[in-house]
Amino acid sequence: MNADLRDVEALVFDVFGTLVDWRTSLIDDLTAFGDARGMRADWPSFVDDWRGEYVPSMDRVRRGTLPWTTIDVLHRESFDRLAQRYGIAGELDGAARAWCVDRWHRLRPWPDSVAGLERLRRRFILGTLSNGNVRLLTDLVKSAPLPMDVVLSAELFRHYKPDAEVYRGAVALLGTAPHRVMLVAAHNNDLNAAAREGMRTAFVARPAEYGPRQDRDLRADAGIDVAVRDLGELADHLGA
Amino acid sequence: MNADLRDVEALVFDVFGTLVDWRTSLIDDLTAFGDARGMRADWPSFVDDWRGEYVPSMDRVRRGTLPWTTIDVLHRESFDRLAQRYGIAGELDGAARAWCVDRWHRLRPWPDSVAGLERLRRRFILGTLSNGNVRLLTDLVKSAPLPMDVVLSAELFRHYKPDAEVYRGAVALLGTAPHRVMLVAAHNNDLNAAAREGMRTAFVARPAEYGPRQDRDLRADAGIDVAVRDLGELADHLGA
Repeated sequence: MNADLRDVEALVFDVFGTLVDWRTSLIDDLTAFGDARGMRADWPSFVDDWRGEYVPSMDRVRRGTLPWTTIDVLHRESFDRLAQRYGIAGELDGAARAWCVDRWHRLRPWPDSVAGLERLRRRFILGTLSNGNVRLLTDLVKSAPLPMDVVLSAELFRHYKPDAEVYRGAVALLGTAPHRVMLVAAHNNDLNAAAREGMRTAFVARPAEYGPRQDRDLRADAGIDVAVRDLGELADHLGA
Repeated sequence: MNADLRDVEALVFDVFGTLVDWRTSLIDDLTAFGDARGMRADWPSFVDDWRGEYVPSMDRVRRGTLPWTTIDVLHRESFDRLAQRYGIAGELDGAARAWCVDRWHRLRPWPDSVAGLERLRRRFILGTLSNGNVRLLTDLVKSAPLPMDVVLSAELFRHYKPDAEVYRGAVALLGTAPHRVMLVAAHNNDLNAAAREGMRTAFVARPAEYGPRQDRDLRADAGIDVAVRDLGELADHLGA
């Protein structure tokens, strides 16, 4: 192990894509939902478009075009726009829309996530560090279930990753120094932002996160401390 | 069960005194610490005086005499003052003082706490809602261990209980309405403040929290929704 990883005492995890397979979970849930109601829609395409709205909607908050707005609210707004575009808005009342948005609170973990977190938790403090709001993450951690010690969220800092305030805020709440906290994520932009704040970084490859034609985040950028294929390999690497 | 308790979806817990026996834990740890170093001191009295500084030190923050300061820092300041008063300051270097202050991160649960929380967690979201800072609570929840879904702390709101901002902030992060959140505590002033914000309240009797001569918080004030002797009885009452 790299000598300076010996100081790490806490691991914080990106969640969507890194710990949970949002795409398969949402496609499965919305397909079952549509089938039960006799609704026809291209749900894989709907889910990809929904996720496609994610970064632009947070960017409106990050640039100050929108005041602080939680992911739950952003998800609902983009769901409503997409329902219109897919021609299914008339079939969806408020309760149905709320149920669909709540699917983000019930995403399923990747096959290695739970066992890997269990191993890592014996040695490190484990926290989320996600753009999901606290209630979303709390429901997700509880329902998956993901072994975690603390739920840290962009909502606590009213800034979305990759704004520096999120990484600095997490280190401050953990009462420690940046080099004692490692961000674990499947996304290079998140890891590079954490590294700029002095945190340690671990890339976990999730080459199917965005489906079969994924063309980004297939490997770690230069400068990331550790690159692994799953959380079991991360536990091996960190001696957990 | 009272009809309006059926809406409760989350339980938030005071921690010091309600879930963990700070007094016995600290007396045991500091006595062992003193014995190992051949130091003589009246540790039960030291611990009672240390806890006695707790409310006045937070009140300096609450009144604005001090800027926001975490419990860890307040504990260290009061420890240093007491070490002087007890004539043991010369025997304690920085590492020893840090170890003593860290004892608040390692307090032991009351005998009913873990089993009661495990039952309640099957039915409700469980969170801390404590004046302890996030790192202190994270260490405590992990080491006890206390089954919890989310760590909520006064530190997130930069206000100490019983300031209203703490209860309002917890309800907002849980993304729900005040009457859907119940505060569980052994202290009437905390519960009364939560009730003023529209939260549901459960009093757990901890008649030995302050030692054999405890004369406060022996029973619930009028207006508190539920009064129980331990968390098992609370689980019974809430059908968990």
